[in-house]
Amino acid sequence: MKFNQFVIIGLGRFGSSIGRELMQLGYEVLGVDRDEEKVEEMSGVLTHAVVADATEENVLRSVGARNFDCGVVAIGDDIQASILATILLKELGVKKVVAKAVSELHGRVLERIGVDRIIYPERDMGIRVAHQLVSPNLLDYIELSKQYTIAELNVPDCLSGKSLSEVNPRGRFGCSIVAINKPKGIIIAPTASDVLAERDVMVVIGTNQQIESFQHSIGQ
Amino acid sequence: MKFNQFVIIGLGRFGSSIGRELMQLGYEVLGVDRDEEKVEEMSGVLTHAVVADATEENVLRSVGARNFDCGVVAIGDDIQASILATILLKELGVKKVVAKAVSELHGRVLERIGVDRIIYPERDMGIRVAHQLVSPNLLDYIELSKQYTIAELNVPDCLSGKSLSEVNPRGRFGCSIVAINKPKGIIIAPTASDVLAERDVMVVIGTNQQIESFQHSIGQ
Amino acid sequence: MKFNQFVIIGLGRFGSSIGRELMQLGYEVLGVDRDEEKVEEMSGVLTHAVVADATEENVLRSVGARNFDCGVVAIGDDIQASILATILLKELGVKKVVAKAVSELHGRVLERIGVDRIIYPERDMGIRVAHQLVSPNLLDYIELSKQYTIAELNVPDCLSGKSLSEVNPRGRFGCSIVAINKPKGIIIAPTASDVLAERDVMVVIGTNQQIESFQHSIGQ
Amino acid sequence: MKFNQFVIIGLGRFGSSIGRELMQLGYEVLGVDRDEEKVEEMSGVLTHAVVADATEENVLRSVGARNFDCGVVAIGDDIQASILATILLKELGVKKVVAKAVSELHGRVLERIGVDRIIYPERDMGIRVAHQLVSPNLLDYIELSKQYTIAELNVPDCLSGKSLSEVNPRGRFGCSIVAINKPKGIIIAPTASDVLAERDVMVVIGTNQQIESFQHSIGQ
Amino acid sequence: MKFNQFVIIGLGRFGSSIGRELMQLGYEVLGVDRDEEKVEEMSGVLTHAVVADATEENVLRSVGARNFDCGVVAIGDDIQASILATILLKELGVKKVVAKAVSELHGRVLERIGVDRIIYPERDMGIRVAHQLVSPNLLDYIELSKQYTIAELNVPDCLSGKSLSEVNPRGRFGCSIVAINKPKGIIIAPTASDVLAERDVMVVIGTNQQIESFQHSIGQ
Amino acid sequence: MKFNQFVIIGLGRFGSSIGRELMQLGYEVLGVDRDEEKVEEMSGVLTHAVVADATEENVLRSVGARNFDCGVVAIGDDIQASILATILLKELGVKKVVAKAVSELHGRVLERIGVDRIIYPERDMGIRVAHQLVSPNLLDYIELSKQYTIAELNVPDCLSGKSLSEVNPRGRFGCSIVAINKPKGIIIAPTASDVLAERDVMVVIGTNQQIESFQHSIGQ
Amino acid sequence: MKFNQFVIIGLGRFGSSIGRELMQLGYEVLGVDRDEEKVEEMSGVLTHAVVADATEENVLRSVGARNFDCGVVAIGDDIQASILATILLKELGVKKVVAKAVSELHGRVLERIGVDRIIYPERDMGIRVAHQLVSPNLLDYIELSKQYTIAELNVPDCLSGKSLSEVNPRGRFGCSIVAINKPKGIIIAPTASDVLAERDVMVVIGTNQQIESFQHSIGQ
Amino acid sequence: MKFNQFVIIGLGRFGSSIGRELMQLGYEVLGVDRDEEKVEEMSGVLTHAVVADATEENVLRSVGARNFDCGVVAIGDDIQASILATILLKELGVKKVVAKAVSELHGRVLERIGVDRIIYPERDMGIRVAHQLVSPNLLDYIELSKQYTIAELNVPDCLSGKSLSEVNPRGRFGCSIVAINKPKGIIIAPTASDVLAERDVMVVIGTNQQIESFQHSIGQ
Repeated sequence: MKFNQFVIIGLGRFGSSIGRELMQLGYEVLGVDRDEEKVEEMSGVLTHAVVADATEENVLRSVGARNFDCGVVAIGDDIQASILATILLKELGVKKVVAKAVSELHGRVLERIGVDRIIYPERDMGIRVAHQLVSPNLLDYIELSKQYTIAELNVPDCLSGKSLSEVNPRGRFGCSIVAINKPKGIIIAPTASDVLAERDVMVVIGTNQQIESFQHSIGQ
Repeated sequence: MKFNQFVIIGLGRFGSSIGRELMQLGYEVLGVDRDEEKVEEMSGVLTHAVVADATEENVLRSVGARNFDCGVVAIGDDIQASILATILLKELGVKKVVAKAVSELHGRVLERIGVDRIIYPERDMGIRVAHQLVSPNLLDYIELSKQYTIAELNVPDCLSGKSLSEVNPRGRFGCSIVAINKPKGIIIAPTASDVLAERDVMVVIGTNQQIESFQHSIGQ
Repeated sequence: MKFNQFVIIGLGRFGSSIGRELMQLGYEVLGVDRDEEKVEEMSGVLTHAVVADATEENVLRSVGARNFDCGVVAIGDDIQASILATILLKELGVKKVVAKAVSELHGRVLERIGVDRIIYPERDMGIRVAHQLVSPNLLDYIELSKQYTIAELNVPDCLSGKSLSEVNPRGRFGCSIVAINKPKGIIIAPTASDVLAERDVMVVIGTNQQIESFQHSIGQ
Repeated sequence: MKFNQFVIIGLGRFGSSIGRELMQLGYEVLGVDRDEEKVEEMSGVLTHAVVADATEENVLRSVGARNFDCGVVAIGDDIQASILATILLKELGVKKVVAKAVSELHGRVLERIGVDRIIYPERDMGIRVAHQLVSPNLLDYIELSKQYTIAELNVPDCLSGKSLSEVNPRGRFGCSIVAINKPKGIIIAPTASDVLAERDVMVVIGTNQQIESFQHSIGQ
Repeated sequence: MKFNQFVIIGLGRFGSSIGRELMQLGYEVLGVDRDEEKVEEMSGVLTHAVVADATEENVLRSVGARNFDCGVVAIGDDIQASILATILLKELGVKKVVAKAVSELHGRVLERIGVDRIIYPERDMGIRVAHQLVSPNLLDYIELSKQYTIAELNVPDCLSGKSLSEVNPRGRFGCSIVAINKPKGIIIAPTASDVLAERDVMVVIGTNQQIESFQHSIGQ
Repeated sequence: MKFNQFVIIGLGRFGSSIGRELMQLGYEVLGVDRDEEKVEEMSGVLTHAVVADATEENVLRSVGARNFDCGVVAIGDDIQASILATILLKELGVKKVVAKAVSELHGRVLERIGVDRIIYPERDMGIRVAHQLVSPNLLDYIELSKQYTIAELNVPDCLSGKSLSEVNPRGRFGCSIVAINKPKGIIIAPTASDVLAERDVMVVIGTNQQIESFQHSIGQ
Repeated sequence: MKFNQFVIIGLGRFGSSIGRELMQLGYEVLGVDRDEEKVEEMSGVLTHAVVADATEENVLRSVGARNFDCGVVAIGDDIQASILATILLKELGVKKVVAKAVSELHGRVLERIGVDRIIYPERDMGIRVAHQLVSPNLLDYIELSKQYTIAELNVPDCLSGKSLSEVNPRGRFGCSIVAINKPKGIIIAPTASDVLAERDVMVVIGTNQQIESFQHSIGQ
Repeated sequence: MKFNQFVIIGLGRFGSSIGRELMQLGYEVLGVDRDEEKVEEMSGVLTHAVVADATEENVLRSVGARNFDCGVVAIGDDIQASILATILLKELGVKKVVAKAVSELHGRVLERIGVDRIIYPERDMGIRVAHQLVSPNLLDYIELSKQYTIAELNVPDCLSGKSLSEVNPRGRFGCSIVAINKPKGIIIAPTASDVLAERDVMVVIGTNQQIESFQHSIGQ
């Protein structure tokens, strides 16, 4: 099932960022916030934005919250409001409700009242930033499992001009380069004769340890 | 250059998440916050945690901030404190200073005063969540360029039992499956005869449009 | 199963009243409140009383909350604290958790997170007081069902000196007098020859309408 | 004398619950509160609801408080407002004034200034809840005197299928079963051959000790 | 009965002034206030001064309030505290309780709870000042009854050097000069030949109208 | 010079009492206060009452403060406002300015900036109350000098029925009874044969010590 | 380049003083402040004065800030607002931006973000006042360099009637009198025969030490 | 008379700047402030710094304020504290008291209570800055009278290399160059053959109009 209409409760930095991106991806978004200023700021960005207290049932009803496919409770620090808005969306029959949690305990309450997905934006972003801090060449990564990762790495100076057969990460560390992003275009499944250059970015897949060893070998 | 010692200014949700992860990755971390409660909470987690006002030069000196390789200014909403702490870290000679910004304008000031990297955690996390909301099978992704993405996708029911040659994303949509994560292990650079199963996760590389068409075809 | 040890979270008027009565009934009671003054006031009354934030898991652990048979969350107006304390008591394994709710919505959240019984003290007391206000002779009552009630009624002047056969509520209205509380002792299942006096209190059982008609006939 | 018109000062949880119930019982109710939001919420429920400061004499006059039979001062925590509103209602000539007290001392002041009845809702409800907590089969009860109580008890499994002659509470403990509430109807003054079933509720009258012994014998 | 020991609740400007004067008149005074600073300021002035909340019964007991002959409740604006402290002093058995009221309504409550005397310092002082403002020669006065007043008047220039027989207030206006306060001593019951001088002060007794006419005649 | 028009700055208890009395005495009064509620309350009482900030020169000008004969600065606790309003009235040319002071230091500043008379209402009233507390028969008094006082005293039981020659205060204590206020009328300069009765009030003049001795002798 | 149009952000004492003086000097000035009261006060003084938040880009745009030659950020204590307003003015293209700093650190941030001139009004005024305090004859001065100063000095009594050849500061201390300001006119480059008088003011140029010695010699 | 010992009341930016400069000039300074943090900051800078409330007489006595030659009341925004501290210093006998005023009215009160000099730092600094803003070459200036000014001006490019006879400000505009400050030293009373260079600063004396014309001619 694909969602077409989203209602976002809470238009702070996190909620408004979701809203902007959903609009850019071509969806309809209703934004709800108690703060008039925030609503005004987003009123030109979202399909609709209304000033309302999302912890009152008749208010949510009156904005037609039940007609939305997916509700996002992006309320920041007011745990009580987050919980009440979430339960109301569920009870109104919104198909999928996603909520931001600010602590483990908050997350456990949300889970009990039946939220479909819980997001910890600051925690998750913190983890991501930590990895990038300790590996300066690391641009981004996906944790495929506890062991396996796909990493997007800058090609350091020391590898510039070398072919994949020379670099040979598979032979030396066990991890594979599955793509090279070059200024003039991307090479998917590169061959042993493809050559790395300074501004290239390589996509590496392997176990955490394999990738770490590879990163270490290239001078980080 | 690799950093070994980090000082984190601001131990809110974002700052403390960075701190926890850096500790787990085996680095030394000093945490600084004005709030006694937050410091107490992190004192058993980080190498050191001190109650201090990071906007006063002699305070930062006395905690030895200058000896750290990398400073992370993770102060939440107090823009003034964020700016002052950042300039002090730069002036004390900390090699790399990374700072969280809460708005475009805040980011522009940080840039002018010489910060090395600016992070917008709520904005970036919001964008990431938006993409996952509209593509329920999408678990995670890396934007390689404006055009190219690596996406980690759940294998939907309709693909279960099919071989890659049957699915044939490259032939039909132009994107490639570079890895399949199966419960019993990961298959890197899978062959045409590899078969997808319901709990598998596939890693797809291609242009945004190719991946979107592929996702669309598999029933989202 | 009978409970012997109670932990009460929140020592306001409602919580402290429960605590006092449980002590008088011979049970052990631990009182917990964030407010030092309230704890001090109850420390001579309850078995133990501690200043603690019941929304933090390790705090509840450290006061040994898990060893109690029954937890009473009597937190007044802070819905968030009420919810968090309740879920923590449940997760710690407290067998029965009873919680005060201040609104319907609050009650629904408590229900979802698995509370065993929800109490609305002000609402219930309001209903009880309303009934007494409109029936000045009504001292107390139990609603047996939507239709049937037991009412404790003052004997009005007009009935003083009359025997039950003269008053004859069963014959005239359908309701029965099952007991007469006289200054010198109670008469259970009184006979037709028993005589009412001015200071007596009679216990009447019947449908709401029967009792109302009876009350109306005796001049209220 | 029966009251037909009520004025309620304070529309918090307690006051509004009294108001709702009085309306349902068919009486006219004027609600008064300083808080616009509360008044708005009750304006569709009560006969009238006005925003007014009940501690100012001319305000109470202008809302015609003197024409009401009975005044209920349900002000929560503001002892001063409670006292001033009470004395004003008395001086305006309201026949009966009932007031909520939040402490012994508050109650003593109310008594001195001539209030007709003082209610301690949280204290009384707390006592009631305490009794139910320690006797899980106890649904409700009336204290007839210091010694005698009428209790409404769930019939436990162990009594299911037994006749009153078998159970014989009068013979064994001295208390009598004066009614049995069965799903299909109530039996008043049941006979020895009436049989108890699992979902029945029995109404027992006796001394506290007799009822407690009976409860104890049936496995609580 | 003469009072020897006073307890003053509230050490603001009014209470502390009473306390200072009572000390100067040779009595023992205990001062009580919630405000540490005020207590400290008066601790060198009064026999004793303690920081305490006079609205809590055990606090008043512990300072031995019951042993005092007379209690003065000089609490300024906190009507609730004034009422509660007053009732507690009465209930503790203090023989005479005098209280400051800030409004008519406050005074009526104090009266109902049995205070022995009610003082309205600002109101009374305001009346006194008003009289002095409109009669610049008026230094002070006592209202003997609704009609009669004793007034202390400056001798204006126009009367300087005149004998009482010349001034003749009794003959011309009906009021009598009962004393003349001269720099060198007071003349009680002056005779017709006594002569007024510029710095003298005369004490006049008469009806309000007589004194007003006299004042008017002497050029005010 | 007699004043006919008064402007009162500050309509608290003290200022409004002056205003009411001046109106009753037949003068014109303009009241000024920053607090809308106070102004509204006095607007039906005074000739005019306006909401205005009396510490701004053009505001005082616009209300025509300069046209008043006498200004009364009755501002309570805001010393700054009191000083600024006072200096403005003086500079605007108001002939006489009277101001309330709340402390010695405040009084000294007012004196320096040229106020015509300083009043300490709470202090003066406190002194007056203290004297009445220690002399229960004392109704009121005027301090003629440091030594001499006129006292208005209740006639105690022990003097009832006695003639002045029997009581003989002049002979025994040195003080004179200059008037007796009897229910049926006042006797000025009473003779030795005038007889005191229980409800009479006597006016005594003498030194403090003489009057105190007299009071002492009559059983206080 | 000469500036003709000024925009002043912050209309406190410092900002409004700049604005008033610029108006008197014949320039156009736009004043901006968040505080309505301040704007109202200056609206009759400046060319324009608007209530606006100068930390929001579109607000500054809408008031046409970019069209001004010179921006003065005179915001007092809100460092954050000062920084954000400054960077916005720079980015909008205002040619010259002058800003007030309240601390060294604040000044350093302003410098980094490219402000053209930083002013520390309280610090600079404090230094100036200190010099005048220790040299009572010193009216004003200009520090030409670390060593040289021009000082405007009162002519003390002891120099009255003496000619410059008698006083001879150049010969005795090394400093020169370059002008004498006499009540009837100024003498520039006075000659040895010019005579000093008591109300004259002399302008002296020399090293700090020379001038200090001269001042010392004339009896300070 | 020369002052040697200063007491500064108020250690904000203005007061602490005075204190620092006085210390550098070799005087003894006692600093007094209510704010512990400010006192701590200055305690290493001034001779002494104490936390004290300078509006209480005995506090000022206890810090020995009377022994100082000169008192500086540098209290910022609290007009009341400024007035009270000033009058206390005067009454304690401090020879000279200088005070900061924040408004005209404040200044008038200070004048009335006898302050020796009143300073308006923000106003005066604002005027000074305004002049510099409109004359970019103007570095500093002294107003000798309403007409005459000494100005310190940058030598602009257009005058570089020209002799004073060529520039001839006296002949062309009527104002004189009384000194030229060159990097290598100052020339006092320069001759017609002295040549200006780009980095020189000239000191000009003349009427405002003469100097303005001169400035205008040199291209500002």
